[in-house]
Amino acid sequence: MFYDDPKKHNLKHNPFKALVSPRPIAWVSSMSTDGVLNLAPFSFFNAVSERPQMIFFAPNGPRPTGGEKDTLVNIEQTGEFVVNLCNYDLRDAMNQSSAHVGPEVDEFALAGLTPEPSINVKVPYIKEAPAALECKFLMNITLPTNNSKTKNNMVIGEVVGIHIDDNIIDGGMIDMAKYRPLARLGYMDYGTTDNVFEILRPD
Amino acid sequence: MFYDDPKKHNLKHNPFKALVSPRPIAWVSSMSTDGVLNLAPFSFFNAVSERPQMIFFAPNGPRPTGGEKDTLVNIEQTGEFVVNLCNYDLRDAMNQSSAHVGPEVDEFALAGLTPEPSINVKVPYIKEAPAALECKFLMNITLPTNNSKTKNNMVIGEVVGIHIDDNIIDGGMIDMAKYRPLARLGYMDYGTTDNVFEILRPD
Repeated sequence: MFYDDPKKHNLKHNPFKALVSPRPIAWVSSMSTDGVLNLAPFSFFNAVSERPQMIFFAPNGPRPTGGEKDTLVNIEQTGEFVVNLCNYDLRDAMNQSSAHVGPEVDEFALAGLTPEPSINVKVPYIKEAPAALECKFLMNITLPTNNSKTKNNMVIGEVVGIHIDDNIIDGGMIDMAKYRPLARLGYMDYGTTDNVFEILRPD
Repeated sequence: MFYDDPKKHNLKHNPFKALVSPRPIAWVSSMSTDGVLNLAPFSFFNAVSERPQMIFFAPNGPRPTGGEKDTLVNIEQTGEFVVNLCNYDLRDAMNQSSAHVGPEVDEFALAGLTPEPSINVKVPYIKEAPAALECKFLMNITLPTNNSKTKNNMVIGEVVGIHIDDNIIDGGMIDMAKYRPLARLGYMDYGTTDNVFEILRPD
């Protein structure tokens, strides 16, 4: 069936995010100029290039209390952030870090996670995470909006260092069964990718 | 372990794409000004905003024979495209459509797929696909590159219509077990998301 505007039809919720699935999760750590840590998950996230290695995520805002999201403010002020990757075992800590709290709240502490010093950026990564991408902020692209309360941002970062838990590497490659990244689906749904298979290129 | 440059270490392949997983797949149909259809899959893809509904994908190039990818040329010339979504059953057709062939080749025919007329764009969608997003081209963002042969592009599109196979809707919502979207992982790996569960927001 065709939907001009899914909200007008007999669907319980807009299916857009359920259709653009499964989405990887950027669990972004950042630091204010005062040194307060921030941690928040974003599923409008992906790699955008390999040469150099760049990623994007969309900290669309504003916060419920107004103003840009803390993550975006911190990144624009310090020029650095870390994309921690999230696995199944960390799903509850990830969810706790998504709570709407003030900029003075350290979500590492809130979620019971350990900030571990990074190598090439000042922002710490999550010690418990299976992997983390240290990133330098390249640009924020402001996209059109059709809602006066919504700002649409795409933060682009270049990866300047990668932490990988030795336990998810097998034979020099990432073992997906050991990594078990969390996937964001539609509605309140999450999932894991347990059925892994190879498809060889046709040429 | 920390990797400044994963290529220098004892890893068989660069782990970047395996870590940024699972990635959704944009199976993009486009049309040349001469009416030749094109179809190609891209896993640097995601939603970027909900208001309005916008998506990005990265047709990074060039083609092996030089020049921009056909998909990007077509979209810049016609201003339209369709993001078809791909499920497990269509995995082989998706892979066939990724073959490096000349711009005169219609990948719908190559992969045995049926072009079905769209409603709000002139580019057809894949009749066999579980869902498809009709898109108007908004902009191409050219990102920095560190390799003279690589161009890094981010195509941004606004969704102007959605096709959904009635068979993947249950009770007004997308049923992930019926949808079964294909996920792109690292290396030659793909997967499906079979373990679906809910996590309620903390606030």
